[in-house]
Amino acid sequence: MGSCCERAAQFFGPQKNTNVRISLPAVCFVWQIAMVILFGVFIRYDEESDVKLWLRFKQEHNITSDIDNDFYFRYPSFQDVHVMIFVGFGFLMTFLKRYSFGGVGFNFLIASFGLQWALLMQGWFHSLDLETGKISIGVESLINADFCCAGSLIAFGALLGKVSPVQLMVVTLFGITLFAVEEFIILSLLHCRDAGGSMVIHAFGGYYGLAISWVLYRPNLHLSKRLNGSVYHSDVFAMIGTLFLWMFWPSFNSAITDHGDGQHRAAINTYIALASCVLTTVAISSMSQKKGKLDMVHIQNATLAGGVAMGTAAEFMITPYGSLIVGFCCGIISTFGYLFVTPFLERALKLQDTCGVHNLHAVPGMLGGFIGAIVAAAATEEVYGREGLIRVFDFTGSFANRSVGTQGGFQAAGTCVSIAFGLVGGVIVGFILRFPIWGDPADDNCYDDEVYWEVPEDEETLPPVLEYNNHMIHKHQDISESNFSVEQS
Amino acid sequence: MGSCCERAAQFFGPQKNTNVRISLPAVCFVWQIAMVILFGVFIRYDEESDVKLWLRFKQEHNITSDIDNDFYFRYPSFQDVHVMIFVGFGFLMTFLKRYSFGGVGFNFLIASFGLQWALLMQGWFHSLDLETGKISIGVESLINADFCCAGSLIAFGALLGKVSPVQLMVVTLFGITLFAVEEFIILSLLHCRDAGGSMVIHAFGGYYGLAISWVLYRPNLHLSKRLNGSVYHSDVFAMIGTLFLWMFWPSFNSAITDHGDGQHRAAINTYIALASCVLTTVAISSMSQKKGKLDMVHIQNATLAGGVAMGTAAEFMITPYGSLIVGFCCGIISTFGYLFVTPFLERALKLQDTCGVHNLHAVPGMLGGFIGAIVAAAATEEVYGREGLIRVFDFTGSFANRSVGTQGGFQAAGTCVSIAFGLVGGVIVGFILRFPIWGDPADDNCYDDEVYWEVPEDEETLPPVLEYNNHMIHKHQDISESNFSVEQS
Amino acid sequence: MGSCCERAAQFFGPQKNTNVRISLPAVCFVWQIAMVILFGVFIRYDEESDVKLWLRFKQEHNITSDIDNDFYFRYPSFQDVHVMIFVGFGFLMTFLKRYSFGGVGFNFLIASFGLQWALLMQGWFHSLDLETGKISIGVESLINADFCCAGSLIAFGALLGKVSPVQLMVVTLFGITLFAVEEFIILSLLHCRDAGGSMVIHAFGGYYGLAISWVLYRPNLHLSKRLNGSVYHSDVFAMIGTLFLWMFWPSFNSAITDHGDGQHRAAINTYIALASCVLTTVAISSMSQKKGKLDMVHIQNATLAGGVAMGTAAEFMITPYGSLIVGFCCGIISTFGYLFVTPFLERALKLQDTCGVHNLHAVPGMLGGFIGAIVAAAATEEVYGREGLIRVFDFTGSFANRSVGTQGGFQAAGTCVSIAFGLVGGVIVGFILRFPIWGDPADDNCYDDEVYWEVPEDEETLPPVLEYNNHMIHKHQDISESNFSVEQS
Repeated sequence: MGSCCERAAQFFGPQKNTNVRISLPAVCFVWQIAMVILFGVFIRYDEESDVKLWLRFKQEHNITSDIDNDFYFRYPSFQDVHVMIFVGFGFLMTFLKRYSFGGVGFNFLIASFGLQWALLMQGWFHSLDLETGKISIGVESLINADFCCAGSLIAFGALLGKVSPVQLMVVTLFGITLFAVEEFIILSLLHCRDAGGSMVIHAFGGYYGLAISWVLYRPNLHLSKRLNGSVYHSDVFAMIGTLFLWMFWPSFNSAITDHGDGQHRAAINTYIALASCVLTTVAISSMSQKKGKLDMVHIQNATLAGGVAMGTAAEFMITPYGSLIVGFCCGIISTFGYLFVTPFLERALKLQDTCGVHNLHAVPGMLGGFIGAIVAAAATEEVYGREGLIRVFDFTGSFANRSVGTQGGFQAAGTCVSIAFGLVGGVIVGFILRFPIWGDPADDNCYDDEVYWEVPEDEETLPPVLEYNNHMIHKHQDISESNFSVEQS
Repeated sequence: MGSCCERAAQFFGPQKNTNVRISLPAVCFVWQIAMVILFGVFIRYDEESDVKLWLRFKQEHNITSDIDNDFYFRYPSFQDVHVMIFVGFGFLMTFLKRYSFGGVGFNFLIASFGLQWALLMQGWFHSLDLETGKISIGVESLINADFCCAGSLIAFGALLGKVSPVQLMVVTLFGITLFAVEEFIILSLLHCRDAGGSMVIHAFGGYYGLAISWVLYRPNLHLSKRLNGSVYHSDVFAMIGTLFLWMFWPSFNSAITDHGDGQHRAAINTYIALASCVLTTVAISSMSQKKGKLDMVHIQNATLAGGVAMGTAAEFMITPYGSLIVGFCCGIISTFGYLFVTPFLERALKLQDTCGVHNLHAVPGMLGGFIGAIVAAAATEEVYGREGLIRVFDFTGSFANRSVGTQGGFQAAGTCVSIAFGLVGGVIVGFILRFPIWGDPADDNCYDDEVYWEVPEDEETLPPVLEYNNHMIHKHQDISESNFSVEQS
Repeated sequence: MGSCCERAAQFFGPQKNTNVRISLPAVCFVWQIAMVILFGVFIRYDEESDVKLWLRFKQEHNITSDIDNDFYFRYPSFQDVHVMIFVGFGFLMTFLKRYSFGGVGFNFLIASFGLQWALLMQGWFHSLDLETGKISIGVESLINADFCCAGSLIAFGALLGKVSPVQLMVVTLFGITLFAVEEFIILSLLHCRDAGGSMVIHAFGGYYGLAISWVLYRPNLHLSKRLNGSVYHSDVFAMIGTLFLWMFWPSFNSAITDHGDGQHRAAINTYIALASCVLTTVAISSMSQKKGKLDMVHIQNATLAGGVAMGTAAEFMITPYGSLIVGFCCGIISTFGYLFVTPFLERALKLQDTCGVHNLHAVPGMLGGFIGAIVAAAATEEVYGREGLIRVFDFTGSFANRSVGTQGGFQAAGTCVSIAFGLVGGVIVGFILRFPIWGDPADDNCYDDEVYWEVPEDEETLPPVLEYNNHMIHKHQDISESNFSVEQS
């Protein structure tokens, strides 16, 4: 591939400067050093992970056994979420024929930075002790940090192959910041419930990425068309990402839900919704192709829409068949999105969305927010019980008198807030990314690992040392292939 | 590849109609809508996942803490089993050079449908409240639903590459139904113990798939011989499936065992049996080849036989060295199966078994059933203690007076029941699948994703249709590469 | 490839005999039978996995509920560690273009043998009941057995592609034995703390492998240069290993730590250290290449160094920013190691280290040991509290009066002991492996699965249907490759 890029250069005049040898290390070092300093100033262990505090905590709450530490009731879910963030998102983005390194590698880079920044941002908003000025972290903070990264990783999906790692670090820095703010507004001020983050993660992340991509529109992107597609094995790699996301989504939606029935119910609802989502995705994918062939793009992505859309309602009493219906509809909507909406957005709105996050995150996330609003508004004492309503919607403190109707209204409002943050924030970040200093690739050079990675010579493309035999073999292959076709026909 | 299929058509006369554009969406929609209705009528949250019931449950059993919810003691095992079903089985079946999409994709489809149908079938048999007419589901139901799918996924292994997705949906519909019935007979009526499902899952699923495959025998399958094999990378993909199955098998065999020593012991026994199985598999595989080279087919499959065979006995006091011996023997038997039995079955019995489920599931499952019978019959009060015997074999209620000898007899009987269900059920389903309406591939067209998937054009293998451009492109590559080598040097 | 091996023979005189058809099965059978006998004599279920003992245990400690069984508080961590051992280490070693079968397959073989031998060795040293002469095993024993294997798998990394499976079995037999001894000395006699095994696992395993590789130096290894590298997809496979190691490392370092705050803290510290390690690895990798391109070798390996270095200190109160700094430094050191130290070792010390375990395990492990020593020595009552110090450093029994300073000294001593065991043991084992009876590959035949595996014909190389052209192409390939090897040599 290398060669063809260089050739393209000769064709299309001077290459953009994609050298990130100064900028990338600079950004990594500066931001990592900042993290060290800020962690030193602010971050401490919480009362369940600090030995002194834990021993005191046990006395005060006369806990007799160490196995009552919350670690044992959050950590398995944390590890599932962790796998989704690094393997799930990472491998889902390996589907491009020549951008697998970038897909999984840059995902690895920005998630690793993002989770550090997230620990700080979320700490300041949610667990800052105003006396000591310290943030306490425990296993639940780690889950929230991973969640926080998800927003930026979703945005990465829309930009895949068109930006430099330096730009991605900027996207993440602002993405995490915006996330923490909107999350604070939605969860704390509006007192919305959003266990699996349909609003705060998916709707926000999706529209954030789309807005950035819209600002970074490349009129000549067709010059990289040859690389904007998959090969057989890259599609199988992407299925690794799809399946780990799909399997662990019940953990994602239940990871930070209240202990007990809440987590239990969230896992069941998500499991069911995802299952029905697969069948409708397959149905629409097959209907859409002459001969009814299935399209890997749909199987890799639309099958997950059900999990996204259950993000808010999963902890509510949506009922199992309610979950089935949500998955049923989202499979259809998301697949239609891949078939018609994404191409339309590119033609009409000049919006280039590499992974189709519009169909997998933005729209299902928004729907999930509104589904949550409806389910909340429809909650009855008969179903939840008096205590149950208070428990599920946390109608305590200053929200003790809130009705389920009001709650539904706030849930809907929260969804709009997250979308607004995504769109506005994305546009601003987009313009920042248009400065010509970030080392982004040229239009004829997108979707190509050659630009930012040392790519090994593949056997298949025989080493350049042997033009001659190379040529001979090719000629023979031609013969063989023609005979081959004879054999066949 | 595409082209060669079409050309093949011209050669072998009118192609079979493999167009599933109507049938596949129809089946998916009809069955998914049926699921929605049936879930609406029957399925409710159980007392640990319904907020109202859980709060009452806590009062009644005066449970003080939400972390006593069974969710926390079943969910990690559930997620391991979930990974086995979707990544384990799915990737194990990606080994064919051109059927990786079908292997992992169809596995995804039928498991997603199967688990919904399984929740209903198992609910009707095991947890139907006769007063309310409702089924209560919780995390343990999810594990059982996944188990239930395993039977049909095993059957898929025998049919891999030779059937259409519509046929697989039929196989799954009947497979789940038969499973629920035989499981009810074996576990409830015969009161057998079968923690890891050697009998109810593996023996049943294996013989079910073999019987179907036998009825669907294709005399001219050799026409697809060119595709019935692996390539280097597809074998590595298959190892992902093998390893996740192998690693999580202790969770599989312990997932629904009684809490406490039962689950603990089941995990240990399976872990040990699998370890020794690997060594004997390697030994036989190496002995079987001149120069002692190892065969990936054996490493990918026979190494798992130890886990299958421990499915029943894992929760018993088989002792660690007993587990070692089980693994030791199964590695040998299974590898011999791949070397001699599968080819023999194909020659003599006209039985085409793509993945060799006969050697990995059918035979080890049957053995596991009989091993369980022997270990049960050999149980003594000295080893288990009086209480222990009652606890492990659940000698309560109407079975209070059953002796271990009788139990052993029933375990053996149960194994025969599962095999009978597999064989008879498989033959019937096989004949249903022979109707010419299911869009199955032609004999020269098997093991080929081209038939049911939009397959991307691979750079490496340019389709033979374009000898000319092919040639042109090569010429260009030569040029480019020469420029390139200049660049380099 | 096949052809080229045979041809190489003609070039470089009589091939070494790599036939392991007798030796490999012999070793597997002999050692597996030995395991069966030794398990029969020594190994029993412990009081939490034996039904009789568990029921008694519950009475004695009046435990009311089966869910207090330690299984539920160790098993999730065990499964994470299990994934690291088999998928993590296994796939990390698939990066070579033609040694993926060997990387993942031999890892599977030796880990499966190793964990059995480890259960015995560690049992004899740590849990042998001197009255009954029996070893009791439970879930914690399984974790320790997996840990024990890690040492030998690390050594495998240094030898990758240059040894036969029989040699690897020998490496593992001695590796496990040495491990158990050094672990006993370090943990029991010196009373060191080493939760994640920086010393006992990584420093030992790294230097053990390096010493063996040094003794087995191959002056003509350049003859296999053509295969000592990756291709595009093999690098993506290796990322599967990297990510599963990276994600589950917090479980690795916390798996056998004391329940409660200890495990909680170990997980947090490791999570943080690994995150910062990624950023500095990327920074150095980018700086090191003209144009700032990233090198997959660094991303695959150096990103993990932070987890290795936190192995000892993770359970201490190192503070979150302390962990960040550890990760920060190790990313830099490890990447520099890949850039400069490994090539230097090969030139100057005649030390061939295929996976660069020197930079990923040996050095970070050694550093981890000393970091642990420093953090221990710096521990204060103010931070830990009186009880806390006793709890974390287990200053009980005969060690009740040990000061943190002394503890620091012993930690440092322990690190030296582990390195000494690795170096001396490795040299001895290396000489044993130099006997000409082990079937190791010739110098021009390394890094090649053809030697020990039945490798499928890849489509790319040639479609099986066409004997004739097939033949022709071969002839031409011979020419091309012979020129090629001339080019190389």
